[in-house]
Amino acid sequence: METTSAPEQTILTADDLLKVWQGHRRLTRKTIDAFPEDKLFSFSLGGMRPFSEMAWEFIRMAVPIAHGVATGKWEEQKEPKPTTKAELLKVWDEQTSKLNEEFARIPPHRFTEIDKAFGQWEAPGWVTIQYGIDNEIHHRGQGYVYLRALGIEPPPFWERD
Amino acid sequence: METTSAPEQTILTADDLLKVWQGHRRLTRKTIDAFPEDKLFSFSLGGMRPFSEMAWEFIRMAVPIAHGVATGKWEEQKEPKPTTKAELLKVWDEQTSKLNEEFARIPPHRFTEIDKAFGQWEAPGWVTIQYGIDNEIHHRGQGYVYLRALGIEPPPFWERD
Repeated sequence: METTSAPEQTILTADDLLKVWQGHRRLTRKTIDAFPEDKLFSFSLGGMRPFSEMAWEFIRMAVPIAHGVATGKWEEQKEPKPTTKAELLKVWDEQTSKLNEEFARIPPHRFTEIDKAFGQWEAPGWVTIQYGIDNEIHHRGQGYVYLRALGIEPPPFWERD
Repeated sequence: METTSAPEQTILTADDLLKVWQGHRRLTRKTIDAFPEDKLFSFSLGGMRPFSEMAWEFIRMAVPIAHGVATGKWEEQKEPKPTTKAELLKVWDEQTSKLNEEFARIPPHRFTEIDKAFGQWEAPGWVTIQYGIDNEIHHRGQGYVYLRALGIEPPPFWERD
């Protein structure tokens, strides 16, 4: 007879979580880059936001969430919103290394400790991080619809390199 | 000085992973239900699939993935594709309890063991499961664009109950 699953079995370590996150961020970067400059800032469907606004939301969430989980201080992104694709990608790449740095500062107990993210969302640290990742997957999927509607092939979903 | 993060710190247990998955499946169920019957099976944007086809893909992935990780047997969903919203939701609800059952059968070592899912995708069990969840989030986000384009408010993304 096989041993069945232990509910407390470790599935994901802190290191895995960061790798999953950065893998998704690499795919999102390719998605931003797949848009023609003007469409990135203007095209939308169903009265929704252009993809540049969604990407800016991801930037406003990623490092501030890692910083908040690390320190208990929930601070908004202060940098001005990029107005060109090149600027947006430059900020994106800066955030990649900042995210690694902030994530490495998270004390182990903060992943499970409940905190009120940005004064609003009460959850354990890892749930807030997971929410940020899921939010990025969700809206990036919407960016794929924009790209398809523009006749552009989106990057393969399974590529995270 | 604060203790910093240990890369091997447990973030997610098997029990957490199943809870996250079922939470997303509850939101997807609400998304299916938000579509008018005819639009669920016919409406699309950018030459993409109607949302019923995406939902059917989620069904064809969830229990078969859990079964594959549990047993090493990668079997396609054999049930016929639903042709009405009521049928689709009925199959969805049946899969909810089947997923709990299959997931509970996963032996601990299978979460990390590398296997070739459906003879194609080589990855540890947890990565294949995570891929199934992420794929559902991604395409459900596309369903949100369809709903918005139809003038229908999608269910709140943060609600998982």
